[in-house]
Amino acid sequence: MSVVAAEGFRAAGVSCGIKPNGRSDLAVVATVDGLPVSAAGVFTSNRAAAAPVQVSRRHLDSSGGRAAAVVLSSGNANAATGERGRSDARLMAELAASSLGCGPEHVLVCSTGLIGFPMPTDCLRRGVPAAVAALAGDADGAVRAAEAIMTTDTVRKEVVVRAGGFTVGGMAKGAAMLAPDMATMLAVLTTDAAIEPGPLAELLRRSVSTTFNRLSVDGATSTNDTVIVLASGRAGPPDHEALGAALTEACSHLAGAMAEDAEGATKVAVIKVTGATGEADALAGARKIAESQLVQASLNGGDPYWGRVVSELGSAGIAFDIDRVTISYGGTPVCRQGVAAAHDEAAVAAHMAGRLIDITADLGLGAGEAALLTTDLSHAYIDENRTTS
Amino acid sequence: MSVVAAEGFRAAGVSCGIKPNGRSDLAVVATVDGLPVSAAGVFTSNRAAAAPVQVSRRHLDSSGGRAAAVVLSSGNANAATGERGRSDARLMAELAASSLGCGPEHVLVCSTGLIGFPMPTDCLRRGVPAAVAALAGDADGAVRAAEAIMTTDTVRKEVVVRAGGFTVGGMAKGAAMLAPDMATMLAVLTTDAAIEPGPLAELLRRSVSTTFNRLSVDGATSTNDTVIVLASGRAGPPDHEALGAALTEACSHLAGAMAEDAEGATKVAVIKVTGATGEADALAGARKIAESQLVQASLNGGDPYWGRVVSELGSAGIAFDIDRVTISYGGTPVCRQGVAAAHDEAAVAAHMAGRLIDITADLGLGAGEAALLTTDLSHAYIDENRTTS
Repeated sequence: MSVVAAEGFRAAGVSCGIKPNGRSDLAVVATVDGLPVSAAGVFTSNRAAAAPVQVSRRHLDSSGGRAAAVVLSSGNANAATGERGRSDARLMAELAASSLGCGPEHVLVCSTGLIGFPMPTDCLRRGVPAAVAALAGDADGAVRAAEAIMTTDTVRKEVVVRAGGFTVGGMAKGAAMLAPDMATMLAVLTTDAAIEPGPLAELLRRSVSTTFNRLSVDGATSTNDTVIVLASGRAGPPDHEALGAALTEACSHLAGAMAEDAEGATKVAVIKVTGATGEADALAGARKIAESQLVQASLNGGDPYWGRVVSELGSAGIAFDIDRVTISYGGTPVCRQGVAAAHDEAAVAAHMAGRLIDITADLGLGAGEAALLTTDLSHAYIDENRTTS
Repeated sequence: MSVVAAEGFRAAGVSCGIKPNGRSDLAVVATVDGLPVSAAGVFTSNRAAAAPVQVSRRHLDSSGGRAAAVVLSSGNANAATGERGRSDARLMAELAASSLGCGPEHVLVCSTGLIGFPMPTDCLRRGVPAAVAALAGDADGAVRAAEAIMTTDTVRKEVVVRAGGFTVGGMAKGAAMLAPDMATMLAVLTTDAAIEPGPLAELLRRSVSTTFNRLSVDGATSTNDTVIVLASGRAGPPDHEALGAALTEACSHLAGAMAEDAEGATKVAVIKVTGATGEADALAGARKIAESQLVQASLNGGDPYWGRVVSELGSAGIAFDIDRVTISYGGTPVCRQGVAAAHDEAAVAAHMAGRLIDITADLGLGAGEAALLTTDLSHAYIDENRTTS
């Protein structure tokens, strides 16, 4: 049921011709009555933000955080498309608004795909009304919507979290670091909890910061990354902490599904830095390790070459004293006080042979800690990304 | 003649057993009389700096910028080796000093190779005196020294620049970004110009900043990167500007040779950012593009996918207005004012098929500009780096 699991939502996905191969490429998630509800979004920090990101930000501003629908297209990012692109993104919203009977500012839009190509507007004119007409509150609608946002994803990414008295559902396409031709991660969450836009935005921001923003493979911040939440209110006011926890659980599940589905990846790694002077340092250190081509190549080879971890930490721009660092693979320390530590090599080799690798660096300086998900760097990653055709 | 082309220097390279395959692995560059001369060094900014970097920095400090010799070993980085490592690096200097008859503080040391393994000191005790005994002022000595610092380099990297009245020679091993198992770039330059240590250090720093520091493939700042210059003074005082130019020319040649010899690389790319609000922004933008796995994968495929260049610029943390950006491949603009520009596709395809790719992004904001050398990301890069064995 994913994005329609919470009461008050419908969804649909159709094929409108944006993707040359005829696969479904346009999704709509909307409230059952077409009336706006509390909404919030977290968008890419990229200064080359795509047209749909610019338009969705403006709509959330002008509506005071209220939306009735989200329209999502795949196959074309509508990024680096200038004024024409903004006009096309507004068109997506206007088409949905006129079909639903709401104002255009109550429609949010997302796109994912190649950068630098104008949107085929004839496809939108055909597809958006068709998708609105197909909106359904059952599992079928949710499945079709989740399928229509896939690019090189091999599985749909959906989640339902049922908490005391309310539900959070969601769908995502995860390609940011996995099949970056498509260069985007998009997610739409829905809940039937009743909450004002301001607190909803704050809860979403917190959830994203510890889930989607803790997943990094190539350090690329796409032009289109978007996470949107709609809250229908039908289940009444929630405990805010419980809603935050449910949102975080849903985001965490979807982020994990993206790492699992990483095209080309043969390993998923949790990179944890502990003992940093603060959380910011821990996160910067974990990010430097996670995004290192050399560390990722070692992961691909299943080689516990901790020297690269030390080297990345030393150049991460954080407080670092090599004489205090301990590095563990799968819980087995292989480096203590900055030098090689005798260890059970068979245990470490067995851990490295698995699909999920656990690397922890304890800086020995303080209480700051942070973890990131990453993947290995494989031939298939290059093959996936060397050409756009 | 490279490192002995300038008057007053001798060099040697021997095999002492650090490399398991028996290849030569220990080089010495020394003044002909074993007396200290003006010396300067530029070292890695990595906070996990290897023991030889720590010891060389200290020796330059305590000697006031005077050195009689540089000892370089390959096959073991002597990094992440703790107090034992510092003791072994001092031993390298002491062995050379007692053979040459100078003080240990007048010997600088460099190592390159795997991180996290203790140095085989018996090899050093055997090798350093043997290398000093083999010192020669002819081409043979220079060749043997340049060979002894190679790791996965496929060619020796040597240079001679003859300027009015003085000579600059040099050798390097370039692996930092090319065959990063060895994770290091080392270079030794010699000149017969007469110059005090302070001005020499300043000229070296400037030369390195526009040459070796403008070469980046994987963004890894190694634990061992070192560039050293010795000035014998035998050719008398130079024009400082001319000496700076000659040092820069020598460094530029060696940096280019590293990119050309990049293991696994099939393309070398010059990434230039112009029209930035300042040089710092231009450099940060060029670095973000050059180190992007996605841009490098496109280079591998010969695909002029400028959307990735825009996306990297937008997330580089620099002043950026997509509506002003122009991106050119091989001098042909493919993106103007942030959107696709009609262009001669055959000309761009022909440029992308070549070995040397030229990408220029004009931000249209100011006069700041900077350029970096990088390479593509290939299957062979992964194969080279997935295991240390």
